[in-house]
Amino acid sequence: MTSDKDELGGIALWRRIADAIRLDIIGGKLTNGDRLPTEAILSERFSANRHTVRRALAVLADEGVVAAEQGRGTFVRSARRLSYPIGKRTRFSEGLAGQAGTLGTQLLGHRIENANATIAKALKLKTGDKVVRIDGVSSADGRPLSRATTWLPYRRFPDFAERITQLQRFTAVFASYDIADYARASTRISARHADVEETKLLGLAPGAILLVSEAVDIDATGEPVSYALSRFPAERLELVV
Amino acid sequence: MTSDKDELGGIALWRRIADAIRLDIIGGKLTNGDRLPTEAILSERFSANRHTVRRALAVLADEGVVAAEQGRGTFVRSARRLSYPIGKRTRFSEGLAGQAGTLGTQLLGHRIENANATIAKALKLKTGDKVVRIDGVSSADGRPLSRATTWLPYRRFPDFAERITQLQRFTAVFASYDIADYARASTRISARHADVEETKLLGLAPGAILLVSEAVDIDATGEPVSYALSRFPAERLELVV
Repeated sequence: MTSDKDELGGIALWRRIADAIRLDIIGGKLTNGDRLPTEAILSERFSANRHTVRRALAVLADEGVVAAEQGRGTFVRSARRLSYPIGKRTRFSEGLAGQAGTLGTQLLGHRIENANATIAKALKLKTGDKVVRIDGVSSADGRPLSRATTWLPYRRFPDFAERITQLQRFTAVFASYDIADYARASTRISARHADVEETKLLGLAPGAILLVSEAVDIDATGEPVSYALSRFPAERLELVV
Repeated sequence: MTSDKDELGGIALWRRIADAIRLDIIGGKLTNGDRLPTEAILSERFSANRHTVRRALAVLADEGVVAAEQGRGTFVRSARRLSYPIGKRTRFSEGLAGQAGTLGTQLLGHRIENANATIAKALKLKTGDKVVRIDGVSSADGRPLSRATTWLPYRRFPDFAERITQLQRFTAVFASYDIADYARASTRISARHADVEETKLLGLAPGAILLVSEAVDIDATGEPVSYALSRFPAERLELVV
């Protein structure tokens, strides 16, 4: 069992071992197909008992980062992280084209809300003004890549929720409002641990790190059309500017 | 003491409590000057004992996020996170102008290395080619904001290390090589936990999250002049595109 002395800053030793191995893979010290050091060597390197090392390896195996092969050892099975471009005209599907097979967005729900200060400022509304809120999860080849919440001015898009339910794609809904083109005005990027709901919806191990982007899109006249809060699992993709 | 049952995915309960309070602050539910709920209420909300709640609050106090006032409670002391712009011509000092008083970069060291595959590709060199490596920490008002490692082609900049030691600023050293202007060609952004050295150099609590940027700068002819790996504490700043 994990004991108190294994804990550093609230991060259990097995998690730190998993992190260190992930870093070696991301940093290129270990690449796809490489055999990991033996449990004995990892135990010594991290001053950990075998049980703790096994727990770290089991987590990495669950994530698909490594795979144990009977009698041969544990091997790196790193699907290279996807690169998600952040540009003036980035669309989810175009941005990941060529990096994944099937791309799709699942709508989780929608509702009318009153804008808080952050949303109001982003959309040039007053705090308390009505906004349409759309929740969804986007996936590539069945693996969740983004949990996004998007807010739009209700006054301009009163039936956005109905249209997105029917048309599925934001681009198509904006086109249905005669907005043929819209562009990214600004993106803020931060990072934090996933909360319980995000962990579940994105299929992550608890304690996973999210890249969080807050983005405002504007129409051709410069008017804000949407404010989106997107959360990406850092272990699955990186953002490219 | 922290017990096994408090641990979820290798993240101790006190850390998850601290994370949740930080999220409330970042998300605007709690703002500067607000009083936190009492220990009793927090204990109930997180199904935690008082000791665990106190540990979470102590960590937040150490980070300067909250401050306990004798007999009055614990208050939010959130210095709003700085916004670090990522643009074609971003320089550290200009990017943070107006957001902080004193800005400075401390050089930690330099050496000649052989380029690994990642560095070689970024600088359009061959793997094994000589590169100059510069290590430093940048701070705003004495608070570390970035731990950066920069690699440059040795052939073009053989005495870069000596010049940066003397001139301190990258802009000045490039100017001394008659490179008056250079621009950001690409930036990749990822996130991960800080390792032991980063935790120490950046003055973080163990388990802190870093935003990691990999950036290539090019000269006016499009030739790569530097490849920089910068690590920013996610709790202190966000990146703005």
